Amino acid sequence: MKKVAILGSTGTIGRSTLEVIRHRPRHFRVTALAAGSNICLLKEQILEFHPEIVSLERKEDADFIRNKFKKYSLRVTHGLDGAVEIGGNPGNDIVVSAITGIKGLKPTLAAVRAGKSVALANKESMVVAGALLRAEARKSGATIIPVDSEHSGVFQCLAGEDRRNVKKVTLTASGGPFFRTELSELQEKTVEETLAHPRWKMGKKVTVDSATLMNKGLELIEARWLFDFEPAELNVLIHPQSVVHALVEMRDGSVLAQLSPTDMKIPIQFALTYPERGDAVLPPLDLVRTGVLEFYPVEAKRYPLLRLAYWALQEGGSAAIALNAANEVAVAAFLARRIGFLAISEVIHRAVDGYQKRAVRSLDGILDVDRLMRERTSQIIQQRY
Amino acid sequence: MKKVAILGSTGTIGRSTLEVIRHRPRHFRVTALAAGSNICLLKEQILEFHPEIVSLERKEDADFIRNKFKKYSLRVTHGLDGAVEIGGNPGNDIVVSAITGIKGLKPTLAAVRAGKSVALANKESMVVAGALLRAEARKSGATIIPVDSEHSGVFQCLAGEDRRNVKKVTLTASGGPFFRTELSELQEKTVEETLAHPRWKMGKKVTVDSATLMNKGLELIEARWLFDFEPAELNVLIHPQSVVHALVEMRDGSVLAQLSPTDMKIPIQFALTYPERGDAVLPPLDLVRTGVLEFYPVEAKRYPLLRLAYWALQEGGSAAIALNAANEVAVAAFLARRIGFLAISEVIHRAVDGYQKRAVRSLDGILDVDRLMRERTSQIIQQRY
Repeated sequence: MKKVAILGSTGTIGRSTLEVIRHRPRHFRVTALAAGSNICLLKEQILEFHPEIVSLERKEDADFIRNKFKKYSLRVTHGLDGAVEIGGNPGNDIVVSAITGIKGLKPTLAAVRAGKSVALANKESMVVAGALLRAEARKSGATIIPVDSEHSGVFQCLAGEDRRNVKKVTLTASGGPFFRTELSELQEKTVEETLAHPRWKMGKKVTVDSATLMNKGLELIEARWLFDFEPAELNVLIHPQSVVHALVEMRDGSVLAQLSPTDMKIPIQFALTYPERGDAVLPPLDLVRTGVLEFYPVEAKRYPLLRLAYWALQEGGSAAIALNAANEVAVAAFLARRIGFLAISEVIHRAVDGYQKRAVRSLDGILDVDRLMRERTSQIIQQRY
Repeated sequence: MKKVAILGSTGTIGRSTLEVIRHRPRHFRVTALAAGSNICLLKEQILEFHPEIVSLERKEDADFIRNKFKKYSLRVTHGLDGAVEIGGNPGNDIVVSAITGIKGLKPTLAAVRAGKSVALANKESMVVAGALLRAEARKSGATIIPVDSEHSGVFQCLAGEDRRNVKKVTLTASGGPFFRTELSELQEKTVEETLAHPRWKMGKKVTVDSATLMNKGLELIEARWLFDFEPAELNVLIHPQSVVHALVEMRDGSVLAQLSPTDMKIPIQFALTYPERGDAVLPPLDLVRTGVLEFYPVEAKRYPLLRLAYWALQEGGSAAIALNAANEVAVAAFLARRIGFLAISEVIHRAVDGYQKRAVRSLDGILDVDRLMRERTSQIIQQRY
């Protein structure tokens, strides 16, 4: 029985994780849940899974939950410190890192430093602190298992292969809701249209990132740190069906691919059971019913942010931190209806333009660049939009 | 430098093997070639690759070659004994088994008994003598590496995976030249139309087998012995593009697939370099240029022989030997224009109908069933067509 802590238990990945665990009650025990502000759902999760400790973002929510469960032996904490305590708890076997954005970094780092199995869905951690997380994992013996479907696919294709024989890795992208939209119509796309993703049910931030392809850009940077690939070895193809998640080309021309139904429960379960595999929680993939599988190159005009991600990859140092921060601020402004869809990319380009790279190694250094870049991006939005 | 013997050097697989070796002269040395009757090509191969021993099917061809190369230190043999001597030569590192049909069995068995790396393209050996070859490989320590693109694909997908986690294996079939032909028009299909395969350049026998889907049936039986799968775990999908060669579904619903350009040089090179991989001898797979990938279920009416292959799989014992023998005779009769295209399946069904299964373990037992079934099939053709 593995003890599982979930950072971000009320989000999309957190909920899917609990659904996987619900199917395998004899294999996993939920010991800790860190949530944001969805107290209703957290209440249900506590009643069903009986964790020993939970954390909420705000003190008042934590007080409410503590009061509600005062007859139980439940420890309730709050804030970033609460999430860090949950991530770093030595009693965990597996920590599912599923808080969105750079907010997830400190709790994830705590889990890595505790030497745990870290099921990583919080890609921003790897994007901004890949070198740090890898170094800490090496020290503590932590295993980082990707939860993103694309990286889970790469991970599975690489099993049993000599890393030196890999020539190219392709992450697929659905292309998002605007893959076939006239470029001239992108200007008017609303928040609702942007959130109507054709294939994946995901959180808001990642759904917007999927429409701009920044999601794939962040995944390229994540892949660089997870698997140690060079920028030139990393590639993106648009694959609207989202059935093939990753393709790994070996030096002899043979290509290994990973396919599965478009449901995060498969990579989540893989990360939880690794190195074993559990029984399927979904009907099997049916390629006949899926219909044709299509692959398209990425249109640079439609997805200008992907090139920016390659720039950050090449640039190294703090470039990815800056790009990620600008993106988080721009996406939040779009979701708050402060800026339009095309302005997301404009704002990020302006924020990153003329950015001076720094070598950043420490957590403080990372958070420093992040804070400066957020201020800069917010200023640009205030001044220009 | 690995010493390579090629059984069937002038056939399609043999020629592709030599092309792969031509690209990697510092890695492989060709020490022995067994050919059929293409003395012109064998002469060229001797001049280019300088083997120590060659064998031809007929004595007169061997005499001709011996005379031609009398100034060289070249040993020339002939007949089945010659091929067996080449297969079993203790000086080989790798034996490429690429003689078509049951003729390839004895030389392949000799290579397996000698404990060599056997790159197996002669699927009929595995079909008729899978149990025997496996038992002999266990005794001698021989490694059997499949050369069929589908089995090479399965082999690559299984690397790094726990065999017990595999739920289903799918071999793809192009569907051959008549995949979209009206069923009513199949009756008149000529030898020329049958040999015009849309995707693969192969020998005549396997190209006819590809049009009837018997090729895939034989491959299912081959997969059963190569990888120890149950009939219910083996599946076929029509995939006209022939880019995805095999799909392996794991018990958790994740599917691993192997893709590559439609060229036998890739699986041949894989078998030669295994467990290493060599540099590509072909341009990389380009999924954008390939266009859509399609998958269809197998239409039972169009491909009645596939069900017969499942019957042989379920039946076990000598059923596969009988099926293979009937198929070899029927295909030869079709190629000799003695019978029409649809009669291939008719003849095989008649020959196999009422067949009494026997438990067969020895080589003599196998060859006995094979001989009896060939006689029976020839008789059916003589009496009915």
